[in-house]
Amino acid sequence: MSDTSINPSEVDIVVAAINSDLTPFLNEWRPIFSPFHLIIVKDPDMDGELHVPEGFNVDVFTKSDINRMVGSSHSILFSGYSCRYFGYLVSRKKYIISIDDDCIPAKDNNGHIVDVVAQHIANLKAPATPFFFNTLYDPYRKGADFVRGYPFSLRSGVTCALSCGLWLNLADYDAPTQALKPEQRNSRYVDAVMTVPVRSLMPVSGINIAFDREVVGPALFPALRLSAEGKIRWETVEDLWSGMCVKVICDHLGIGIKTGIPYVWRKERGDAIESLKKEWEGVKLMEEVVPFFQSVRLPRSAVTAEDCVVDMAKAVKEQLGKVDPMFARAGDAMADWVKLWKSVGSSAPEV
Amino acid sequence: MSDTSINPSEVDIVVAAINSDLTPFLNEWRPIFSPFHLIIVKDPDMDGELHVPEGFNVDVFTKSDINRMVGSSHSILFSGYSCRYFGYLVSRKKYIISIDDDCIPAKDNNGHIVDVVAQHIANLKAPATPFFFNTLYDPYRKGADFVRGYPFSLRSGVTCALSCGLWLNLADYDAPTQALKPEQRNSRYVDAVMTVPVRSLMPVSGINIAFDREVVGPALFPALRLSAEGKIRWETVEDLWSGMCVKVICDHLGIGIKTGIPYVWRKERGDAIESLKKEWEGVKLMEEVVPFFQSVRLPRSAVTAEDCVVDMAKAVKEQLGKVDPMFARAGDAMADWVKLWKSVGSSAPEV
Repeated sequence: MSDTSINPSEVDIVVAAINSDLTPFLNEWRPIFSPFHLIIVKDPDMDGELHVPEGFNVDVFTKSDINRMVGSSHSILFSGYSCRYFGYLVSRKKYIISIDDDCIPAKDNNGHIVDVVAQHIANLKAPATPFFFNTLYDPYRKGADFVRGYPFSLRSGVTCALSCGLWLNLADYDAPTQALKPEQRNSRYVDAVMTVPVRSLMPVSGINIAFDREVVGPALFPALRLSAEGKIRWETVEDLWSGMCVKVICDHLGIGIKTGIPYVWRKERGDAIESLKKEWEGVKLMEEVVPFFQSVRLPRSAVTAEDCVVDMAKAVKEQLGKVDPMFARAGDAMADWVKLWKSVGSSAPEV
Repeated sequence: MSDTSINPSEVDIVVAAINSDLTPFLNEWRPIFSPFHLIIVKDPDMDGELHVPEGFNVDVFTKSDINRMVGSSHSILFSGYSCRYFGYLVSRKKYIISIDDDCIPAKDNNGHIVDVVAQHIANLKAPATPFFFNTLYDPYRKGADFVRGYPFSLRSGVTCALSCGLWLNLADYDAPTQALKPEQRNSRYVDAVMTVPVRSLMPVSGINIAFDREVVGPALFPALRLSAEGKIRWETVEDLWSGMCVKVICDHLGIGIKTGIPYVWRKERGDAIESLKKEWEGVKLMEEVVPFFQSVRLPRSAVTAEDCVVDMAKAVKEQLGKVDPMFARAGDAMADWVKLWKSVGSSAPEV
């Protein structure tokens, strides 16, 4: 763990409330979350009342807030796991940390509770090194450094914009893998964090992430939605799609993304076989979109995340729109997201 | 640890003998090395007698063997740490494992001795995944898999040709880092192995590596030698240079390189301040060569490691030769290495 000091006024913790009773979830996280401001967004499809325990500095947003602020006839749907993105939109803090509500704190190899906030912020505050691979993992971590042969000119690194955490117990598998290996549990705590190299794509999972909202906030959005999507993590792809976009955008802007610690402990939810019985499009999807994201290039005129999303949305509509109308809708949603970010959201007003 | 079964007839362990008394080194490794054939190459600069303990299946090669088989007036010098490459040349096995003689077995997080042979061979026998990043590390490891969103078409992976292990206690730092942080020790055992993504360069260290000799043997050679090179690891760059070449070649051939476990425990040797007092060129070197290796492209006609080395040698001489005569000599050595590999070495004769 880094000894980076954290200013609570810099951090929002965003929770998408899929479960109506957040009491067990928040009580587990209390020692870690209580110094920070929480933004809880209630899934607009949830009928019952949301239960949030006492003792937190929290703002809760519901369907009526969403409708009031962004309208209800929008291309962007904030239902299910996507409701978290409404929280990203209304935050005014530098850093956002987002954790799914079926995750509780994990323990490290020494049995100590992992402070997910401290580690995510340490990841974001220390530079990233996307342009050369350091075999000794994060070179800025206490006790670590750059390995012999690492170019000195690259040792100052670049801004880290996104920190992708991992999962113990139930890892983030897709429905087919989960159905095939229902007993598989992840018990290996890998005590490392590293920069994902430039031009290497990865599946970003929204379960346990943190990002610099000021730098890449506009590039994290709920744009792609499967028609058979439900309230189970492996039925959603909004984070995978947004993750491919944000990786390409970070590569273009010369900033970095890290993956590794901190871990959360993920509890079980859902029946993978039931998900597979639906007409599940997730498997096919990545085969279609990976070649696009591997080859798409953004223009030099795109110098902010907002610019990049606008240009990426155009490319998506032009190149993928004809493959499936789902992609054309995703392109529209991305363009609309940037407009929302500038109006409802917290973008610095452009004079 | 994988349960891959290992056929000893497939493996050579190559040791460059820099120390004249290998007794403590080999006694430490006895439980792990004893089923396998060892090739020990005595540093031709060593004057004294080499001591090798009883009880190993071992062939020792000395200066007279080197002179007899490759001649003494060659562009390739097999002295110091480079003597190991003579072992690579005379091996006839599928896999080679090479460990520096100042390393002993490490212990994992559970206190168990790391079987460096079993883990390296498991790394080489399981596929590599250079074309997409798996956030859950090696997807083929017991208890692991591909993360949600990983393209199914890429889940079969490609051949893994090189396995780069790591170091506990004394990590592989350069002389400036070692001089700046003389007390720094690596105590973090990161229980992971991963594929280095395509087009991402890395510093390959020769301290603890294994490779598929039949696939990439011709691409591991002692070509670049600093004028002030001594018998201290951080004064050598032959492995860094060869590592940049082999990474570019693997990328070109569509095969993979892994980094991570197994660890060795590295003991101390050398005085970093003394190294810095020499006219040490290592720092400058990487700044010159990284842009070259990032941009060099091999022709489609290069379909084997041998072809690739010949083409790479030409590019080195043309593009780097004018920067420093050291690089021109390295290009000559690479071309000569392929000739040696075909004559003295074990290349399949081309009819």
